[in-house]
Formats: sequence, C-alpha cells, structure tokens
Amino acid sequence: MQIVILAAGQGKRMNSRLPKVLQPLAGQSLLGHVLQTSRALAPQALCVVYGHGGDQVRAALDAPDLRWAEQTQQLGTGHAVQQAMPALAGEGSVLVLYGDVPLIRTQTLRELLNAAGDSRVALLTVTLDEPAGYGRILRDAAGKVLAIVEEKDADAGQKAIREVNTGILCAPAHLLCDWLARLRNDNAQGEYYLTDVIGMAVGDGVEVVARQPAQAWEVLGVNNKAQLAELERVHQANLARELLEAGVTLRDPTRIDIRGELVCGRDVEIDVGCVFEGRVTLADGVKVGAHSVLRDVRVGEGTEIKPFCHFDGAEIGAGGVLGPYARLRPGTVLAEDVHVGNFVELKNAQVAAHSKANHLAYVGDATVGSRVNIGAGVITCNYDGANKHRTVIGDDAFIGSDCQLVAPVTVGAGATLGAGTTLTQDAPVEALTLSRTRQLSITGWQRPVKKPKA
Amino acid sequence: MQIVILAAGQGKRMNSRLPKVLQPLAGQSLLGHVLQTSRALAPQALCVVYGHGGDQVRAALDAPDLRWAEQTQQLGTGHAVQQAMPALAGEGSVLVLYGDVPLIRTQTLRELLNAAGDSRVALLTVTLDEPAGYGRILRDAAGKVLAIVEEKDADAGQKAIREVNTGILCAPAHLLCDWLARLRNDNAQGEYYLTDVIGMAVGDGVEVVARQPAQAWEVLGVNNKAQLAELERVHQANLARELLEAGVTLRDPTRIDIRGELVCGRDVEIDVGCVFEGRVTLADGVKVGAHSVLRDVRVGEGTEIKPFCHFDGAEIGAGGVLGPYARLRPGTVLAEDVHVGNFVELKNAQVAAHSKANHLAYVGDATVGSRVNIGAGVITCNYDGANKHRTVIGDDAFIGSDCQLVAPVTVGAGATLGAGTTLTQDAPVEALTLSRTRQLSITGWQRPVKKPKA
Amino acid sequence: MQIVILAAGQGKRMNSRLPKVLQPLAGQSLLGHVLQTSRALAPQALCVVYGHGGDQVRAALDAPDLRWAEQTQQLGTGHAVQQAMPALAGEGSVLVLYGDVPLIRTQTLRELLNAAGDSRVALLTVTLDEPAGYGRILRDAAGKVLAIVEEKDADAGQKAIREVNTGILCAPAHLLCDWLARLRNDNAQGEYYLTDVIGMAVGDGVEVVARQPAQAWEVLGVNNKAQLAELERVHQANLARELLEAGVTLRDPTRIDIRGELVCGRDVEIDVGCVFEGRVTLADGVKVGAHSVLRDVRVGEGTEIKPFCHFDGAEIGAGGVLGPYARLRPGTVLAEDVHVGNFVELKNAQVAAHSKANHLAYVGDATVGSRVNIGAGVITCNYDGANKHRTVIGDDAFIGSDCQLVAPVTVGAGATLGAGTTLTQDAPVEALTLSRTRQLSITGWQRPVKKPKA
Repeated sequence: MQIVILAAGQGKRMNSRLPKVLQPLAGQSLLGHVLQTSRALAPQALCVVYGHGGDQVRAALDAPDLRWAEQTQQLGTGHAVQQAMPALAGEGSVLVLYGDVPLIRTQTLRELLNAAGDSRVALLTVTLDEPAGYGRILRDAAGKVLAIVEEKDADAGQKAIREVNTGILCAPAHLLCDWLARLRNDNAQGEYYLTDVIGMAVGDGVEVVARQPAQAWEVLGVNNKAQLAELERVHQANLARELLEAGVTLRDPTRIDIRGELVCGRDVEIDVGCVFEGRVTLADGVKVGAHSVLRDVRVGEGTEIKPFCHFDGAEIGAGGVLGPYARLRPGTVLAEDVHVGNFVELKNAQVAAHSKANHLAYVGDATVGSRVNIGAGVITCNYDGANKHRTVIGDDAFIGSDCQLVAPVTVGAGATLGAGTTLTQDAPVEALTLSRTRQLSITGWQRPVKKPKA
Repeated sequence: MQIVILAAGQGKRMNSRLPKVLQPLAGQSLLGHVLQTSRALAPQALCVVYGHGGDQVRAALDAPDLRWAEQTQQLGTGHAVQQAMPALAGEGSVLVLYGDVPLIRTQTLRELLNAAGDSRVALLTVTLDEPAGYGRILRDAAGKVLAIVEEKDADAGQKAIREVNTGILCAPAHLLCDWLARLRNDNAQGEYYLTDVIGMAVGDGVEVVARQPAQAWEVLGVNNKAQLAELERVHQANLARELLEAGVTLRDPTRIDIRGELVCGRDVEIDVGCVFEGRVTLADGVKVGAHSVLRDVRVGEGTEIKPFCHFDGAEIGAGGVLGPYARLRPGTVLAEDVHVGNFVELKNAQVAAHSKANHLAYVGDATVGSRVNIGAGVITCNYDGANKHRTVIGDDAFIGSDCQLVAPVTVGAGATLGAGTTLTQDAPVEALTLSRTRQLSITGWQRPVKKPKA
Repeated sequence: MQIVILAAGQGKRMNSRLPKVLQPLAGQSLLGHVLQTSRALAPQALCVVYGHGGDQVRAALDAPDLRWAEQTQQLGTGHAVQQAMPALAGEGSVLVLYGDVPLIRTQTLRELLNAAGDSRVALLTVTLDEPAGYGRILRDAAGKVLAIVEEKDADAGQKAIREVNTGILCAPAHLLCDWLARLRNDNAQGEYYLTDVIGMAVGDGVEVVARQPAQAWEVLGVNNKAQLAELERVHQANLARELLEAGVTLRDPTRIDIRGELVCGRDVEIDVGCVFEGRVTLADGVKVGAHSVLRDVRVGEGTEIKPFCHFDGAEIGAGGVLGPYARLRPGTVLAEDVHVGNFVELKNAQVAAHSKANHLAYVGDATVGSRVNIGAGVITCNYDGANKHRTVIGDDAFIGSDCQLVAPVTVGAGATLGAGTTLTQDAPVEALTLSRTRQLSITGWQRPVKKPKA
C-alpha cells in the first residue's frame, strides 16, 4: 500500500504567507497531522504532492521516508495524483489523502484499506444533513456505488441524496494509473478531477465500495481561519475526552489546550485555562493550577503547580511545590521536594532536594545543593556582558535576601550569606559571609517637597 | 424523617485512588454536596452507608450528626439500605439518596417528602429523551404507578416509556424495613435491588406517587471523570446564573469557577477566567480583573483588583487598588485605600490606610502604618533560617527602593530609608537612615570579551 | 432623516446604581453602541430621550451632535418619542431606536430606511420560534401589514403568528407627530404605546412595510445581567468571526474579548484567554501569548508577546520579544528588537533598539539607549516621595544586577555598573562604576536556632 497526500493548494482564503498545509493545528502543521496518521499505516511509499510554497513545505517536513512530487500547475485533483504516480510502484494499492484534511483517523483508513483489498476501489463517504455543494454518491437498488454526481450536474432527486464524496479513496495502483491517464478536463473548471475515476472503475467492472468515518469531523477540510479554529476545537475536545477517559480530572474540558503530547499518571488534576506544548509528562497525583503554560516538561509524583506558572524545558522532581507565577526555563532540573515560589525564574539551574527559592529571585546557570534556602530577591549574576558563568551553592547554604552572586562563584556547604551581600569571591563553608557597610541615620534631614509643575 | 445516603460504591471507572464519593465537584466532595442538601432538610437521622474506601470517607466527612453503616459486601442498593436500618428509628419516613448524585436540590426533595406524607411511597422519576438502560415507570390508565420494569425485562412497548426511575425514594420506615427483609437476589446480577420495593408497595396496597425534579441534571450520577466534568460545568453554570440574577456583571458566564461561596454586593464586576475558592466576599462596586484567583478573601467597597491576582486568606479594605500580578497570602490585612502593585507578595502583613507597595516587593510578617511608601524591590527579611521575626514600619515612613529590612526591626514614623539600605537596626523617627558606601568609577576599565566555546 | 433613541428606562432588573443604558458591553455603554450605529447613518438630528439617571447619562455621553429630551415620567414608548418631537424638524423621516438594544446593525437600519422612503412607515420585525409575550404582526392575504396585536389581545390564531414587533420603526416626521398626539392610554398599563401608530397609519391609508434583520440578535434588548452577558458573548463571537475572516489565527474564538478596536495585520496569531481594550494595533506576524491583556497598544511587525503580559498605553517596535509576565505602563515606547522579560515593569520609559531588560526590574521615567543590558533586579528610583525624576542611560551601557539608579541620574554611553550598585551620581562613559564594600567572612559563626513557640 502506498499513500499520496495532496498538498499543493495555495489556500488563498487563509490570508497568510504560510502555505495552507503548514498552518498549525494543535502545534503541528495540517500536513504534519496527515503524515503522522499515514505513517501509522506503514505504507510502502509516502508521497507528498506539493505546489504553492513548496520550498517552505519541504523544508518544514522533509524526512527520509518521504517522496516529493511537484505539481507546477493546479490542474485539479486528478492531475495532482498523476504527478505522484512516477514516484510510486505500479503494484499494490494507492491511498489518496489530503494535506488540509488533518483529523482523519488511522482506524478509519484501515477500514477503508481493508474494504479495498487488492482489487476494489474503496471510497470514503460521509452522510451530511446539508449536502449542498458536495458530490453525491449514486447507488443502485442493491446499494452498490454507481457514480459520483457533482452538485451542478445533479437533478432534484440526486440533490436529495445526503451521502457525499470526501475525496479520500483507495484504488489498485495499476488501475488508478490507467484511469488517471484517461481523465479529461472538458468541464466548467477545465480541471482533471480524481472523482471521475469512480465512473471509470464502474465502467471497467471494478467494484467500488464505500466506507464512512466514525465521526464526520474526520473528513472536514480547512480552507480558512474559521475552519482552522473549528478543527482546532474539535481536536482539543477529542484530546480532552481521551484524558477524561484515562481518569484525569479536568475542571473544564473546553478550557485545555494540548499542542503535542500530554501523558498523565493516576489522579492528575488540571485546572482551567492550562496550555500544554511539546511533550509534557505529569506523574501520579500532580496538580496543575489554573492558567498555567507547560512546554516540554516532566513533573514528578505529587508535585503541586499553582496558578500562572510558565515552564519550558524543565524536569521537576516529586513532591515539589511551584508557583504561583514561577517560571522555569530550559535546563532547569529540580530534585524532589523543591519549592519555587512567586516571581522566581530558574534557567539552566540544577537544584537538589528540599531546596527553596520562594520569592522574587533569578537563578541562572547554577548548581544548587540540598536544603538550600535562597532568599527573596536573590540574583545569580551569570552574565558579564560577554560570557555566562556558573554559580555553585553547597548543601544547607542560606542565601540571605537580595544577595547578588557574581559568577563564577561558589558558596560553600552550610555557608550563610548576609542580606544584601554582593558576593564576588567564594564564600567559605559554614561561615557567615557578607559585604555590608555601616548603617547611618541623619536626623534633622528634610524630605524633598513637591515641586510645582514647570 | 430520616435520610440514608448510599456511598459504598467503588467507582472503578473514576480511575482514582480517591473513593468516588470523595471526588471533588466545585471544591467539595460529591458526598459533601449530598450531605449539605440533606442537612437543609433537618432530618431526625442522617446515615451514610459506606464501603469502598470507607476509612477515607469517614475521615473526610465525619461529623457529630452523622451515623455510619458499613456495607462490607456490595450486594445491591437494597442490601445497602438494609445496612442502614439498624441505625434508624422504625417510625417516620426514610429518604434514600446517593453519594454520587450531587446536584439534587433541596426543593425537589421537599416536594418528594410532601408527596410521601406519612403513608405513601414517593419515587423521584425523570423523563428522558433516551431512556435506554434505565428502569421504566409503569403506570395504569389513571396514571397510578404500578411498577418499575428494568430494561432487560421490558417489552417493546415498555421500552418506549420515557419516564425512568432515579433511585431516589421516600418510604415509611416500618414498611421499608419489612420490604427490604423480603428482597430476593434471584436476578442476573445476584443483587438485592431497592427498586423491588416499589412492586412490594403496590402489592401491599400502599400508594406509590411519583414526582419529578425541575431540572434533569439534579438526578445525574457520576461514574467517570467525563461525567464529573459535565456536572462541574452544570453546577458552575447554575452558580453563574445565580450571580447574574443577583445583579453581578459577568463578562463570560461560562468562564467563572466558584468552589465554595461567593457573596457579592451591588455593582460587582467579574472579568473572564476568574476562580473563587473557599469563602469570598466582594463588597459593592468591587471589580475583579481577568484571570484572578481568590480564596478565602474579603474585599471592601470599590476596590479594584487588576488581572492575574492571587489572593489567599486576606482581608482587603475599601478603595484599594491591587495588581496586576499581586499576591496576598494568609494573614494579610489591608486597610482602606491600600495599593499593592505588580510582582508584590504580602504574607501575614497588616497594612494601614493609604499605604503603597507598588512594585517587586516582599512584605512578610510586618506591621505597616498609614501613608507608608514601600519602594520597588523592598524585602522584609523575616526568616533567619530558623525563626520568623516581625518588621514594624511607622506611619508616613518612606522605604527606598531595594532596601532589606532585617527583622526584627522597626522603622520609626516619618523615617526615610535610602535606596539599597540593609537595615539591621531600628531606624529613628523622621530621620534619614541609610547604609551606603562611596560610589567609585574606574576609567580605562576593560569589559570582558566573548570567549570562544570550549 | 432624524433619529430618536429611547434611553429613559430605569432598568430596575439590572440591580445596579448605573442607569441601564450606561451598562458596558464590550467596553462601551449600551447607549454608546446605539449612538455609534446611529452616527454611521449620518442623521440630520440625533436625539436621546433620557429619564432615570439622566444626569449620569448626559455626563457620560454628551457630544455636540446630540440633542437631549427629558422624559420626566415614564408614560410609555409613545410618550417618550413625543418628548423628542420638539427637538426635531417636522420634515423628513424619524427613525426610532432603543438605548438598550445595542447590537442593531447599520446595514439593517439602512434597509429599513430605504423601505420607508419618504412616505411609508417601515417596521422592523423578527420571526421567533417562541413569540409569546411579543406583539404579533397581522398581515392581509397579500402580505400587507395591517396591525400589531399585543399578546393579551391576541386570539389563538394570532398567537400562532411568529412574526413579532421589535419596536424599531421609521415614519415620516409630520405623520408621526400627528399620530403621537392622537395616542391614548386607555389600556391595562395606562401607557401611551408607540406601537399604536401602526394601526393609525393603516387607518390613514399610509403604507406600512416590514423588514427583518439578518440576525435575530440584532434586536435583542437588555433587561438584566443575564441578557447583558448573553449579548456580550454574541458581540464577542461576531468580533472573533470578523478577525477570522480577516485571516487572524485564533486558537479559540470563544476565548477572546475585544473591548474597543483590534486592528490586525497579516499572519497575526492570538492564543487563548486574551483581552484587548481600547485601541490595539498588531502588525504583521505578531503573536500574542495565552492570557495576555493589552490596552491601547501598538505592536510592531513580528513581535512576540509571551503569555501573561499586561500592556497599557505602550508602543512596541518590530521584532520585540516580550514576557512572559511583562508589564508595560503608559508612556512606554520600545524601538525595534527590544526584549522585556519576566516580572519586569516599564512605565514612561523610552527604550532604543536592541536593548534588554529580561528579569525582575522596574524601569520608570527613563530614557534608555541602544544595546543597553539592564540586569536582573535593576530599579530606577524615580520617586523621592515628592517628585518624579528621570534616569538616562546611554547606548551600550551594561547595568549590573540589582543596581538602584537614584534619579535624576545619567549613565554614560558604554558605561558598566557593578552588581548591587546604588548610583546616586552620574556614571561616566565607558568606565566601570560601582559602590561596593569589602566582602567579609566570619568563621565560627553560629546560625540562629529554632526557638520553641511562645
């Protein structure tokens, strides 16, 4: 079995510089969704027909298993498939998919392939309440598919037919090749329609069978941003339902966005308004507070994430307490029972167990030991304007509020830094280190007075 | 009147370590909702039948007014009620409720109890568009309830009946006791069904009356996380509607979450995405900005809360201006006209009228006077690594930016602290206090240059 | 053509101190919406009939093009229009609108005006599935409007009519004047109904034509907060649809709020939960992250706004990177490629190209040059308790972490400030300036020990 994906359309109505098939849905391009579904079927060949914005499309999605066929002129779907035929073997079957129909399910395609077998044409159809505009499926009294009648050619009786063509079909390669060669463009649009092969198949005595997807949204295409948004929500609703079925507690299934893969353990709770991007793993008992954004994060068992967190590229141990308003940037690795509080940013910081940075701090390019207390307002000065340097803090250190640790610098185990210290040299283990000037009071001092506006 | 609540089910499909009846809906366990509704009816006795996870259930919800009956084996709803009978008086009536049917309304139950009176059985039924799977209510030509027919025993005509059994019923205690004793488990599941008492009642010539809830969602049960989420949204929509009816302005009634009690004065405005937990009181004219999270908070008249605030355990005076990104933690008490700005955290801080902390500050364990200005970056160093200490700031003090107040420490009334001061001793009233070293410039200084990567 | 807007109703069911027509919908009062729509029709005269809360209404919305007519007693819609007649010319036509029907579209009114022409009465009607409570439109066999029958006067056949009166109508001024004078209040409510002029028109042989709005929501009125919220969401859905049609990518069209005007270039992406207020302009390729709030902002091409940003009164150049958790306050002007990071507040700060303030900083009343690096925790001390002063930072300056710049103060071009410096005097160009005391370590120091609770 070989797959052809038609992805040459311009998508003018998207109103975008980005080719239509590269528009993102749930963080992945439309075409990327179709490729993912296609690969799950393990085809002998996978060929993308590209056209508008072809360089961008190839650059975005090229992979060793892909063949590319260019359609320089948009002469219709039949013409598009024809461009792919030289890249395919003449044996076996060919499944035709569309780069702008992203939600087709693997299971539906499997059933279509089974229906086609070696010698039949299998057509995916769908029954619509409002079929106007689509090609209707004509069947004989026995239910056998006879032809597809386009809207404009349909009589009143045919227009009443609610079963319509989705464009997705599977056919024996050698027959398809022959039919495509025989397509004519003597129609209103002057295009070569893939649809016409159905009539040829029937004419040639090849059986045409029809299958339907389990859900109508599987065959919805994207032609504008409204449809893109509609499919985004359909897809998100599907993902939310899967999470619920797996036992995840969602406070509002309509207010979660997953753009990638979200893997949840048992008894995970996700509050309203959260966004997950890339690959996020939440272990048993993790709670994610309202309006948090997590991207490429692993979170250990029982960790509580409070509202308004923003994590990217971080690994978080078990039993942690994070947020509200905590930001973790790439390279952050937190061991178990680490607390990161409000208005705290960590970047490329490795923090050992039971350490805390609870208020208004920046910890970047740092190695932090166990049971360390990083006070409010502490800043690791990791950047000297040219290079980044590391800060190393030993176990049990206590970093007083508002200290600046001018890297490279090391704080010894058990060391204490006095509040407001600018640490430029290493702080010895166990000692109290500080840089502090004498406190002075000036009595009789006159406060500034409000000046009249100039 | 006595109430029995069946709460012994495992809830396997919840996929959770937490027993089903302890799953939270709007911040309260399912069983907690049913208990609250039950108590509003002032029953003579209130008995919970527990089983799976019984210790957890009792630990979570035990109270002096509750009686507990264990159902060691799950032998059916009839068997479950039977376990409760020894805990109940043999007189009066018994109302049977379910720990996983959380949204039943008191008013509906009152009507059911009235219908039952002293001598009748009153059954709560509901009319469904898709009754498949439920026990159908059979009535005679005069509309009198005759029996409940289970799905599997129903003929085609009976299957067309759309009025179904909800399981909630009220019956005279002594009759119920007798019927329960006569229940048999010679059915496919081998269980003792409470439903069967209806047939016994009819057989014994006891009148069976039916009542229906005003809303179908009152009798929806929770068996999985999808249903839990569905009821959460139904309940939230109900709460939002109540707020709207009381005159609260909600920008989007589908994007507010109330998990506890939200009491609003006149002309309160709540923007999108807000979450309220515990008991929150908003006085007249309070505005709550988008995406704010408030828990156990009282807010005074006319106070404006800007977006992204996170308040927990705080009391806020009238005319305040808070946020965006303000965090108030337990013990915070703000008098009138206090301003707390962005990236400011207050914890156990009592702030008198007209004081301000508008930028990037941490004020913990502090008593702050009136008209105090707390500059950007100010930190009260309340924790010495072992104990917490208080900071006291007098009226009209001006705390310069980035000061650290090393508690215990007192700033006198009218005192001024210079920017960057590390205050370790008390600052006298009216004076300017600072700890500052001489500013020094090194000309000809060479900046670091970018090193090649190793 | 002249317009009368009825805006005298109290709106008791709004439960508010604010008069009903001043209640906000999408950031503008209900009456403000009707005025905006009215002005698009360029009427010869625009007269508001006010009553309850009249002073508030006039104060909020007065403008040179408005005439005001007071209705001291609420004696019905006919009486209300009558109050406006002295303010209008006796020629041309009069269009009657309602201050609590905010979503009526200009296009619908244009069609109504065209239908009225010079000599006809044109009535806006709507066909409802549930017409109960509204006045039904009676037509003769030829479809000609004959009269409006109020619910209470309607027979069963008339009650089945689903076309109802919206109250919006257009009539020749001199005829309307005459009919209003002939209105009688001998009805159950003792009010003078505008509706009755339809019967008078027919009686006088004046043709009455009916038109319908394209959408039923155009004629929905607001009488309580639930209806206000409902129309808010209808309006927001309309605005979202317009953005989608213009090619904007919205991750969730049901989770965007626009309260003013949002102008978007090509390839703009807006994530979930964003709120736009006032006038916001987003150039080509701008991305707005989840849960951001933007008010009166212009954003340059290709700028990326990360989640949780709060901008008000700012101008942002091209290619910027902002947030998460960045706050820009009025007077902020950022040139191209400026980076503002987490927990950073800018107010009245003008920042030249390629400068960065990425972490935990407050920059207020400042002029910042190009390629400046503002370190973490830096604070411009712009307020001395009485006056605000400016900080000026030259090109290529490097401001070390946690510096306080005590304004008025100037940092020379190419200057470097050491971490933790309190800058009270100008820093020379190219030099390293710092205020730093010696670092000191005390060995053998004993940490505080946990005291037992008193």
